[in-house]
Amino acid sequence: MQNKLVHEHERVDELQRNGYSIIQDPGRFCFGMDAVLLSGFANVKKGEKALDLGTGTGIIPILLEAKTKGEHFTGLEIQPESADMAARSVQLNHLEERISIVTGDIKDASKRFGASSFDVVTTNPPYMIGQHGIANPKDAKAIARHEVLCTLDDILRESAKLLRPGGRFYMVHRPFRLAEIFSRMIEYRIEPKRMQLVYPYVDKEPNMVLIEGARGGKSRLTVEKPLIVYKAPGQYTDEIYSIYGY
Amino acid sequence: MQNKLVHEHERVDELQRNGYSIIQDPGRFCFGMDAVLLSGFANVKKGEKALDLGTGTGIIPILLEAKTKGEHFTGLEIQPESADMAARSVQLNHLEERISIVTGDIKDASKRFGASSFDVVTTNPPYMIGQHGIANPKDAKAIARHEVLCTLDDILRESAKLLRPGGRFYMVHRPFRLAEIFSRMIEYRIEPKRMQLVYPYVDKEPNMVLIEGARGGKSRLTVEKPLIVYKAPGQYTDEIYSIYGY
Repeated sequence: MQNKLVHEHERVDELQRNGYSIIQDPGRFCFGMDAVLLSGFANVKKGEKALDLGTGTGIIPILLEAKTKGEHFTGLEIQPESADMAARSVQLNHLEERISIVTGDIKDASKRFGASSFDVVTTNPPYMIGQHGIANPKDAKAIARHEVLCTLDDILRESAKLLRPGGRFYMVHRPFRLAEIFSRMIEYRIEPKRMQLVYPYVDKEPNMVLIEGARGGKSRLTVEKPLIVYKAPGQYTDEIYSIYGY
Repeated sequence: MQNKLVHEHERVDELQRNGYSIIQDPGRFCFGMDAVLLSGFANVKKGEKALDLGTGTGIIPILLEAKTKGEHFTGLEIQPESADMAARSVQLNHLEERISIVTGDIKDASKRFGASSFDVVTTNPPYMIGQHGIANPKDAKAIARHEVLCTLDDILRESAKLLRPGGRFYMVHRPFRLAEIFSRMIEYRIEPKRMQLVYPYVDKEPNMVLIEGARGGKSRLTVEKPLIVYKAPGQYTDEIYSIYGY
């Protein structure tokens, strides 16, 4: 079965969770630590439905299915080749009844799925503003990294519609955009409730930020203890090992 | 001379900087680590003029005079008894030509000093919203801790007027208000440019945040490495000792 599901140029990586694996194409885009950390930061409770905006390989719904008690997970992906590969990863893990991969545009997501249709929205969006320095804006890596096909505003506007009142929004992003992110979240009434900065080392600037918002929540932010990735070069901290499931 | 300047119930504390001291009244409000950390985070360059909003004991202008090359420092304080005590600390250190203490209301600051009249504004404002849980709103500690006499909005509105274009705003605050702070700063065109979270221990939630903004700056935030206060109970980290000047 694996042979049929995995195409040439693709590889299969083990996820250290429930025996799950994921199909990736190194020529396109492979998931990073950001997606794994987001799946450790997000919480999908028993009976809840979650949507991942821009799911790529499908890594976030697959890890959340393994880690949480959520009832159903949907991954939305605009690039047909990525969506097809993510759907094959779902099949590979026999998760067709728990995870749906949908090909479509984030900008139309609330029309497609309907208002207040999810308890949780997750996203690992493109971090970089605009197309500066991109050789080919149709390149899968450029689409994943730069705001070529959707912006932070598109994501927040659609998430505010897609979430039920009180529903939770989880995003990983870069710290250099934190002020803009909070300002826009408040504008779209997704109140920032929790944040954790990810520092590569204890004495270095953070390179990721994990954010939780609540649709229509009250203004009060909890900032978590620092999440530190390495205790020595090549040696993860215990917390990172535990998130990765080793 | 010290006897004349220091009143009954007051004490004189050494500041470990330039031989400076400060007068404090333990029955009123003594400065905390937040003011010291802000004076280490803020930068006043050669020839620049700085204003401290709600200066209390005058600790921030006195420390900034010692630590930076700034030309002149003004401390604005609404409570006459505090302003008088701060002015006596300035005299005690023979800093009358470098530091002015002014009695007045933050809400009228831009009328009093004029638009674009400072290169730098610093503030260690009241952290708590409203007057919930205050026994006596005229109590000096309540005024220093709660937004009784001025709000975050008052401070940002006045600072945006007081700063020259490109002028810098430095504030210490509590992390639970970070999202609101960034959102309001952007509204008042004081763009958040730099931030540092202060964690009491490496594995604990932060209890302070240091923020730098620029009037009319571009949107890009630098998040600094974590500032960790204690390496063991009662034992400061080297960085804290260096900020305190020991």
